[in-house]
Amino acid sequence: MTTSKQMFSTVSSEGQLTVEVKEVEVPAPKDHEVIVKIEVAPINPSDMWPMFSLGDLSKAELTYNDETKKLSAPIFPGMTGAVRTRLDQACPVGNEAAGIVVAAGSSDAAQALMGKRVAVLSGATFAEYTCAPAQMCLPHAENTTAQQACSSFVNPLTALSMIETMRKEGHTALVHTAAASNLGQMLNRICISDGVELVNIVRKQEQEEILRDLGAKHIVNSSSETYAADLYKAIQATGATLAFDATGGGELASDILTAMEAVLTKDVTGLNTYGAPQHKQVYLYGGLDISPTSLKRAYGMSWGIGGWLLMRTLSTLEPARVGEMHKRVATEIGTTFASAYTAELSFEEALTPANIHKYNAKKTGEKYLINPSL
Amino acid sequence: MTTSKQMFSTVSSEGQLTVEVKEVEVPAPKDHEVIVKIEVAPINPSDMWPMFSLGDLSKAELTYNDETKKLSAPIFPGMTGAVRTRLDQACPVGNEAAGIVVAAGSSDAAQALMGKRVAVLSGATFAEYTCAPAQMCLPHAENTTAQQACSSFVNPLTALSMIETMRKEGHTALVHTAAASNLGQMLNRICISDGVELVNIVRKQEQEEILRDLGAKHIVNSSSETYAADLYKAIQATGATLAFDATGGGELASDILTAMEAVLTKDVTGLNTYGAPQHKQVYLYGGLDISPTSLKRAYGMSWGIGGWLLMRTLSTLEPARVGEMHKRVATEIGTTFASAYTAELSFEEALTPANIHKYNAKKTGEKYLINPSL
Repeated sequence: MTTSKQMFSTVSSEGQLTVEVKEVEVPAPKDHEVIVKIEVAPINPSDMWPMFSLGDLSKAELTYNDETKKLSAPIFPGMTGAVRTRLDQACPVGNEAAGIVVAAGSSDAAQALMGKRVAVLSGATFAEYTCAPAQMCLPHAENTTAQQACSSFVNPLTALSMIETMRKEGHTALVHTAAASNLGQMLNRICISDGVELVNIVRKQEQEEILRDLGAKHIVNSSSETYAADLYKAIQATGATLAFDATGGGELASDILTAMEAVLTKDVTGLNTYGAPQHKQVYLYGGLDISPTSLKRAYGMSWGIGGWLLMRTLSTLEPARVGEMHKRVATEIGTTFASAYTAELSFEEALTPANIHKYNAKKTGEKYLINPSL
Repeated sequence: MTTSKQMFSTVSSEGQLTVEVKEVEVPAPKDHEVIVKIEVAPINPSDMWPMFSLGDLSKAELTYNDETKKLSAPIFPGMTGAVRTRLDQACPVGNEAAGIVVAAGSSDAAQALMGKRVAVLSGATFAEYTCAPAQMCLPHAENTTAQQACSSFVNPLTALSMIETMRKEGHTALVHTAAASNLGQMLNRICISDGVELVNIVRKQEQEEILRDLGAKHIVNSSSETYAADLYKAIQATGATLAFDATGGGELASDILTAMEAVLTKDVTGLNTYGAPQHKQVYLYGGLDISPTSLKRAYGMSWGIGGWLLMRTLSTLEPARVGEMHKRVATEIGTTFASAYTAELSFEEALTPANIHKYNAKKTGEKYLINPSL
């Protein structure tokens, strides 16, 4: 019986967070499952809430105990409701990773992966081993490294699925916020390659430059004095009526809808009581800004805002289409879907407050990996 | 050549609102059109913005000039952008009315209406005569009065279309805000008659009583100390995952989504990072509260908020279905779709500041008509 070191996060009823590495048994894979020996796992923004369940990590009182090797912190008062479902349970963490399939169930799909390097999406990848259904594995070419392969799901499939949503819902161009992110850079490469017009919204000069160097045509800096006019011009140039917003909070989504409506009604005369008939949509796929979303509703009656989630979007696509997307990710993992990493951390290093503050800062161009063998 | 007294609203580039009655020529109807001699026209909340284009009418400096018979007011600073499309144009006002068809185009549909009392939706009903396509007329029975017939479109078809949207989008129960309104009362009657569970949200004790007297089962008072718990219980009892909100601003929509999510996840354990997979939707169909909509986003990733507009919803339905809805309105205009009115106003009375403040208050149970013959 093999055992696996695996990271778990627990929030107690008393409001105490504990993140620790425990030794657990590796299960025997069922027919359709495989066991992946993990080489590296990226720490994505989407891993932060499951891991820590602290609204603003930068203000949290994180303590690492060198003897017990446990990270602990008090949950902010009033947050208990938001973590109600997980209280007093040791929850696995880590969305994705790359590794080698070391055991496989009896099904053809599982057996076909035996011995291969795969990317895996299991929700329990901050571990030495993870168990996952074969269809949650994406096999890579022999010359692809674990560091290249480990970010195959969350960012690449999110970027590709945004385009799928755009086509399915009848839009022809996109707006993306936090656009210089790892995901944003992928989306920019996909849009250039597929001939889709993309408005990239960023907050900083250096993020503008990253995107300009990648050939982005429409870049809008929300910190610029000419922000509103720039946004209008970019939306006019692209005809975008769909946006994906990673920030979630504040007025950004409302700003985007306002600009879309202004473009659509620029030549309208008369009462215009209900605004342009064209539907304008913003999907919030992240929550980098945890403040409430504020909607000024100066965009008529044909608009929508809502949550957007990769897994739920993928479940609405044809399996064959998802298969094509997987193949594209494997083929273009060194180009379109390339990620760069700042450092590899051991389990212990990943639980050190100084490092947590580093990776939680989610700075553009900084991304960390957990390597269980360190 | 017949002439018609007709109300027009103009906002000048200098930011001055003028509402006045002008004498205009009545056009000859085209083949598919009819001319309706208007008996009474309801002043609906949806008439206020086209008429006045003043955000908060209660704070506006309204002046009625007895000699010129014009109402005037300065537009609030900063509102010019919101009325950009209508500047310096005399715009017709009044969504709906009842009247007699006094002229008809050559088409069968138009000729069939000749001499009949109809409800009409034209956007120019605060007038002695209005011209409209035959399909924008809803013929009524001989014993139906103009006062009964005049509110056939905006409220009855809105209430019926909410049920259509519910069915089309896969929901089985509804939440409605401002639920004691004329529209809310109709929706309550439809839901009782059609066996659809409805959560009625109101702000006042007397509104609770109106709905209780109408047989409403689930009434939630947002001013109550037990509001959050009451809302949760009502949503749990009904299984509602769709809401129609007349207020638009503030936290009401967010409260509703929060309660829906809490009900859907009450038995969930574990991380629950992305919340319940069931889609939760709030449509904002009005803007009684003009403050920004504030979304706390404590409802996972499967939710949406958006505008909802009667005419755009009707255009997505089968014409035969719309025909059935028209027939139901005509048949049940004295029961399900009955409206009550506070007073009938002449054109001049409708432009008097004291009366404007009365009808703009949109008090539950108070509704005014314009009668061009007074």
